[in-house]
Amino acid sequence: MAQAWNLIHRPKGLPTYTDFALRALDNRDLADGEVRIANRWLSVDPYMRGRMNDTKSYVPPFALGEPMTGGAVGEVIESRADTLPVGTRVQHMAGWRDEAILPADQAQRLPDGDIPMQAYLGALGMPGMTAWFGLLAVAEAKAGDTVFVSAAAGAVGSSVVQIAKAKGMTVIGSAGGADKVDWVRSLGADAVVDYKGDVPLVKALGEAAPDGIDVYFDNVGGDHFDAALAHANQNARFAVCGMIDGYNASEPVALRYLMRIISQRVRIRGFIVSDFLSRISEFHHGMGEIVASGRFQREETVVEGLDAMPDAFLGLFSGKNRGKMLVKL
Amino acid sequence: MAQAWNLIHRPKGLPTYTDFALRALDNRDLADGEVRIANRWLSVDPYMRGRMNDTKSYVPPFALGEPMTGGAVGEVIESRADTLPVGTRVQHMAGWRDEAILPADQAQRLPDGDIPMQAYLGALGMPGMTAWFGLLAVAEAKAGDTVFVSAAAGAVGSSVVQIAKAKGMTVIGSAGGADKVDWVRSLGADAVVDYKGDVPLVKALGEAAPDGIDVYFDNVGGDHFDAALAHANQNARFAVCGMIDGYNASEPVALRYLMRIISQRVRIRGFIVSDFLSRISEFHHGMGEIVASGRFQREETVVEGLDAMPDAFLGLFSGKNRGKMLVKL
Repeated sequence: MAQAWNLIHRPKGLPTYTDFALRALDNRDLADGEVRIANRWLSVDPYMRGRMNDTKSYVPPFALGEPMTGGAVGEVIESRADTLPVGTRVQHMAGWRDEAILPADQAQRLPDGDIPMQAYLGALGMPGMTAWFGLLAVAEAKAGDTVFVSAAAGAVGSSVVQIAKAKGMTVIGSAGGADKVDWVRSLGADAVVDYKGDVPLVKALGEAAPDGIDVYFDNVGGDHFDAALAHANQNARFAVCGMIDGYNASEPVALRYLMRIISQRVRIRGFIVSDFLSRISEFHHGMGEIVASGRFQREETVVEGLDAMPDAFLGLFSGKNRGKMLVKL
Repeated sequence: MAQAWNLIHRPKGLPTYTDFALRALDNRDLADGEVRIANRWLSVDPYMRGRMNDTKSYVPPFALGEPMTGGAVGEVIESRADTLPVGTRVQHMAGWRDEAILPADQAQRLPDGDIPMQAYLGALGMPGMTAWFGLLAVAEAKAGDTVFVSAAAGAVGSSVVQIAKAKGMTVIGSAGGADKVDWVRSLGADAVVDYKGDVPLVKALGEAAPDGIDVYFDNVGGDHFDAALAHANQNARFAVCGMIDGYNASEPVALRYLMRIISQRVRIRGFIVSDFLSRISEFHHGMGEIVASGRFQREETVVEGLDAMPDAFLGLFSGKNRGKMLVKL
């Protein structure tokens, strides 16, 4: 019987297991134009935390007592739509469940080829596209720039590191703990600061970037954002797509270096990947080239089974993932 | 005997009178190409506080035990330069003193006409130019936008209010106390919030701007910056030229609404007026039109005498000025 994770309480701070409940899904017959999809891989992403609050944001909040949604890939197992016959591999937004019924136009056919389908939830999907447009369009990073990217071991950050290196930039990443630091270095980063280390971040970044930074790609906010301000060069550009440090926090962010916005003429710009949907072909073309070069490392942290999906989600906030965090069904 | 204010201690926090000393200036003869200027008006500006710290910034720090500098207007009283004969009215940066010796190319002749010379230290000078380019070039404000400007009773802010109204924008200002609130309204502001009032700023701004703000012109930082984030519309633009709240503070700035940078796609950009020197003719032309229309209100808060200059400077930080704070000699 098909099941889905429902949001049953709105979390305060860090969510707990009791905020979620796995419930049976209505196993109805298909209407004309619909398909039934067996999900194979489900995505958990930090932005989902925002949807658990009952506040206006760029995506509407999850409804209480209803199945949650999110990125997923799977296979059509029943079809009343000519465009998506049984066996088609598709990507869609009816995640947090093992089976989905959707109108055919709400599921995108995945390209043929030997790329594993879960890549379309990571480097070739939303996180990769966030990295691509955040770095190249929002921050206008170019060859020769020194780029600092926070959460460089995450799905977005690890793509930023590799895109930046492919484009001739110097890259400094931040990651938590020796394993991740080593991994980010293996992706090509010129230096990596350990935000869980003994050295305060603002000092560690100063040592890693003695000539300052030209670009900051922010996935974290808080102390990372402040350290980036502290070491921003003249006309530095900040692309802000996430501030995971604040998603579960009720305390304000304390910034010591905010005034450097003025002296360094810093430009800060927030963005959402969907702002760039009309330019998706640039991403497919450019990222395709990098992946085809064979140098792109795609890493996944996989949690098995729908039952464990809250573990996967909560793991994002304690840094359990290296690369893309996924649930495999 | 000519005198100048010297910086004798680097202030910690708010400067005190003992950080400054009035000392005799060397009354030497002029060299070829030099002029002697009797200063008539001296400018005090918030940015000068930054120069009292021994830190790298966009202008070098004041040297300890040396005369300070800043904007001034005066009259040539002795000349060994053909370009600036005795009697010429000039503007220059050798302020904080009653008399200045300068090479002729470091003093700009003021235009003829009946505009009082001190206007070139305010609306027709650096503060007016800061307002002009910050609003129109940095924040790209246009007719129909709702603009929030902090310190709207100050030299820069009161110019922003009037330029914005002349350009067809809706303007909300902040000011401290009923007198200033009334005055900013008299400049044409559609609404004014009193930051010294009982209502928290973030709430007061929400009431004054029920449909949010498209542009924020920041002179203040701190709570004002946070309130602007709280009420920023999609694609809001922030121009940051000053954060006077932080100039004397050692505590970090606490921001509750920083994450709205993402959901609202806010663009924040710091700038210094000198970045726009190459476009000064746009300012002279455009501001000239507004002033010529007869609707521009130029207000000055005047402190008399060189002795009182530290009072004028310190008064900036307790909001003693309405419009441009000046010292009249």
